[in-house]
Amino acid sequence: MSTLDDRSVHPSVTTGPISGSRRVYREAGDLRIPERRVLLSNGEHLDLYDTSGPYTDPDAAIDVHSGLPRLREPWALEPVGGAVTQLAYAKAGVITDEMRFCAAREGTTPEFVRDEVARGRAVIPVNRRHPECEPAVIGKNFLVKVNANIGNSAVSSSIEAEVDKMVWATRWGADTVMDLSTGKRIHETREWILRNSPVPVGTVPIYQALEKVGGDPAALSWEVYRDTVLEQCEQGVDYMTVHAGVLLRYVPLTARRVTGIVSRGGSIMAAWCLAHHRESFLYTRFDELCDILRAYDVTFSLGDGLRPGSIADANDEAQFAELRTLGELTHRARAKDVQVMVEGPGHVPLHKVAENVRLEEELCGEAPFYTLGPLATDIAPGYDHITSAIGAAQIGWLGTAMLCYVTPKEHLGLPDRDDVKTGVITYKIAAHAADLAKGHPRAQERDDALSRARFDFRWQDQFNLALDPDTARSFHDETLPAEPAKTAHFCSMCGPKFCSMKITQDVRRYAEEHGLSSAEAIEAGMAAKAEEFGEAGGRVYLPVVR
Amino acid sequence: MSTLDDRSVHPSVTTGPISGSRRVYREAGDLRIPERRVLLSNGEHLDLYDTSGPYTDPDAAIDVHSGLPRLREPWALEPVGGAVTQLAYAKAGVITDEMRFCAAREGTTPEFVRDEVARGRAVIPVNRRHPECEPAVIGKNFLVKVNANIGNSAVSSSIEAEVDKMVWATRWGADTVMDLSTGKRIHETREWILRNSPVPVGTVPIYQALEKVGGDPAALSWEVYRDTVLEQCEQGVDYMTVHAGVLLRYVPLTARRVTGIVSRGGSIMAAWCLAHHRESFLYTRFDELCDILRAYDVTFSLGDGLRPGSIADANDEAQFAELRTLGELTHRARAKDVQVMVEGPGHVPLHKVAENVRLEEELCGEAPFYTLGPLATDIAPGYDHITSAIGAAQIGWLGTAMLCYVTPKEHLGLPDRDDVKTGVITYKIAAHAADLAKGHPRAQERDDALSRARFDFRWQDQFNLALDPDTARSFHDETLPAEPAKTAHFCSMCGPKFCSMKITQDVRRYAEEHGLSSAEAIEAGMAAKAEEFGEAGGRVYLPVVR
Repeated sequence: MSTLDDRSVHPSVTTGPISGSRRVYREAGDLRIPERRVLLSNGEHLDLYDTSGPYTDPDAAIDVHSGLPRLREPWALEPVGGAVTQLAYAKAGVITDEMRFCAAREGTTPEFVRDEVARGRAVIPVNRRHPECEPAVIGKNFLVKVNANIGNSAVSSSIEAEVDKMVWATRWGADTVMDLSTGKRIHETREWILRNSPVPVGTVPIYQALEKVGGDPAALSWEVYRDTVLEQCEQGVDYMTVHAGVLLRYVPLTARRVTGIVSRGGSIMAAWCLAHHRESFLYTRFDELCDILRAYDVTFSLGDGLRPGSIADANDEAQFAELRTLGELTHRARAKDVQVMVEGPGHVPLHKVAENVRLEEELCGEAPFYTLGPLATDIAPGYDHITSAIGAAQIGWLGTAMLCYVTPKEHLGLPDRDDVKTGVITYKIAAHAADLAKGHPRAQERDDALSRARFDFRWQDQFNLALDPDTARSFHDETLPAEPAKTAHFCSMCGPKFCSMKITQDVRRYAEEHGLSSAEAIEAGMAAKAEEFGEAGGRVYLPVVR
Repeated sequence: MSTLDDRSVHPSVTTGPISGSRRVYREAGDLRIPERRVLLSNGEHLDLYDTSGPYTDPDAAIDVHSGLPRLREPWALEPVGGAVTQLAYAKAGVITDEMRFCAAREGTTPEFVRDEVARGRAVIPVNRRHPECEPAVIGKNFLVKVNANIGNSAVSSSIEAEVDKMVWATRWGADTVMDLSTGKRIHETREWILRNSPVPVGTVPIYQALEKVGGDPAALSWEVYRDTVLEQCEQGVDYMTVHAGVLLRYVPLTARRVTGIVSRGGSIMAAWCLAHHRESFLYTRFDELCDILRAYDVTFSLGDGLRPGSIADANDEAQFAELRTLGELTHRARAKDVQVMVEGPGHVPLHKVAENVRLEEELCGEAPFYTLGPLATDIAPGYDHITSAIGAAQIGWLGTAMLCYVTPKEHLGLPDRDDVKTGVITYKIAAHAADLAKGHPRAQERDDALSRARFDFRWQDQFNLALDPDTARSFHDETLPAEPAKTAHFCSMCGPKFCSMKITQDVRRYAEEHGLSSAEAIEAGMAAKAEEFGEAGGRVYLPVVR
């Protein structure tokens, strides 16, 4: 029987619209582009990029045992030059439905998406075997994306919990999820996630390969690894982290580091290289690996196995030696029409962030950079979603295409459902801050809509336009729970007499009532109006003291 | 009777050391410099800058009804040139005990502190009437400082709650606190805070002045304001926010903003100017104000009453017009030997942050910049401690001397005790990230100590070196509560088989056991050792699979 028929597994996922909004579909030719429409009390609405899949569509019938609709099945094209990758089509000048879908989501042209993919400056991770996926384009000239890591470990979690986390993460805006399971039932957990995921799913195949050999890195072999990759390609994994840049000669460069090797995959391959004193099979068999990924259009995420795990180790010889090798591999994969992303640090102080982006773009031909944070300091375990969001906003602004979230549990334990939401919201903040700083044409629309609602005291609109309406509303309710407070022209922060926005509105209303529409007119008119204004008993302020 | 004798007020504050550390005093000549000593399980210790006052000293007798010891009473000096300000002494070449105290805390020389103060590039806010205060120096060439806002509003809080918040905020690292009370018993609340505060206390006198005239801005007058300032100077307020840059002609510049005027003080003065169609008395009476502050050595914090309240309004004409006036006032105050800080935004996208610092330094002669965030986006109410920490780390790196914290309740309500802690910890992260990026000589010591503890699996040391040991420990305990887990060479995040640090340690130990101490030696030796290593059955990995 297929995995999803297993009735002993009972995933329960969150469905229904996010407060104050609903999923709508915009027609783009024969494509239906999903968006989240926030309805405002003034009759206006704002449509947002939506990653939540059918789960937030009140009209969708959700059954995790049958999985999501196979959206992309009809989109499949004949191979070009024997390849079925988005990169091959892009190079051949073919605009795929995936490119049209992504262009419509991003508010740009399909030709621009095709050109960015053809240059290797953007990727669309879509395994042919994952037709449930709503395609997203990842590249520096598009909206900064956010990945959420999920997956169990030997000491924690279950299939149900991971499927729930996947739906929960995409609900709050995760553009992709990575299943990093290392515990029991890895294959089944991944199957449940893939069949129910509306976003691209990434993995690190070496984890499952290591499980297959009993957890001893020295027992790994190319054959075990290859078969694991094939198994995951067949299942529909959209992108795979491959630590092919951890070369034997680089391992000694980590000997005097403060925190050595902190990448799981990196340390596993370093151990293998040292045990056999041979070059990594991920490197020596890289061309064969390209051929496998090419057949499914699985995207490489070239892992930075030697990324720094502390401020002290940032931008050191080991890290940049590996990056040079990742650059070499990027060009080899592209030559075979395989899409490539390159992973980045880690722990990096703010003044060393720019060098990471500059080198990656130079060595890897601007392949989409996909970074973990970076954490801007080591001293705040328990708050590393924040220390890393500081670095993530910075590196996103400088050109990083996708940010891998960090949760409050980083360095301490496995994230639970609440940690996943906190991590995703925190990274949506960092990604949006980067989009604003990069001057993305539509990024500021949401800021402006929310700020206008704030200034107009349209509290419900302010909540509903927020990244997390539920939390914003509950914080407001803690001090002013009564319904009238939702229209009050003040909050508990300053109280009625001290609300600056209230006073400003009174000032502005006075000006407008007296036809002082422009700044110049106000200046010119104030002298004349001042006396009358005084006689009116400072009526401007009456509402303040009412 | 004095306010503190009022037995109907029962403040209860948090006392006792922070987990894993204790307050120690380092002798610096005849001065005792407070530090927080973190004791490590390997016999080492790390001494940290400490803002918590006697409350974390197990030997200190704390009685909020009598207040803290009057540390600085014996330090008072004769006036120079009729002035008793740190700036006057610095200009005269006099090194005060306050300067020596700050130098010892910062790990620099008293002469350097004196020189920075004399240039106006640093301030030491210490009202002669606040002898309980442990002096701190605020300037771009010292550790980035953090301010925590407390204070009640008409609809929330009490004296007890605010005193508790003050002690709580300094416990977690607040370098100064501002009492922004606008509700009942403003004078009494401030007295309780001042007599029990180990850090400089700031206020915005216009708030109390407005209360005195029944909350009607138009009813304000210079006389009411002056008397309020005198009352607060007498009490011992160390620095005061004065919105003297909000000029009548600037008000119209805000007419077409998305969020108008969002500063309480700024909107109050704008309303006054418009009501009377006269120039702000804060500006016309500025010289008299300087004479009052000079007599007590109260530091100006020139408020940015026209700061942007949204991304859309950042760096606009109104904001920078006011900044030019603040520059003029800075030089006028300095000429009268009054210390000056200048306040900054607000809401600013990352790419517009640098311009704020550049202009402030140019127009205000490098007066310490004191910014609120800035928030890097408007779309995350409920998470604005994070959106603002992103901007705060950036602006701190670029030279901002003090960061005013933002709590999760920003825009939604008055922060409670938990919000205060979250805000302070979040801002300590931003300030420390800035110190690292600025290359502060000692900033990285703590990162390195914590990272070494992490790599050595000294969990308790990692927790105790964290900004918030309690939260780090509790997160770890959620999944691995048992005591052995505190020494385990893995955590629930990856489990035993996948712990990269564990594998790295095994690799490193193998190398060391074979005398391969340096990277070169490891490289050279590995070939020779590889076979033996293989015969040993990959013993390097035995610990992994045990």
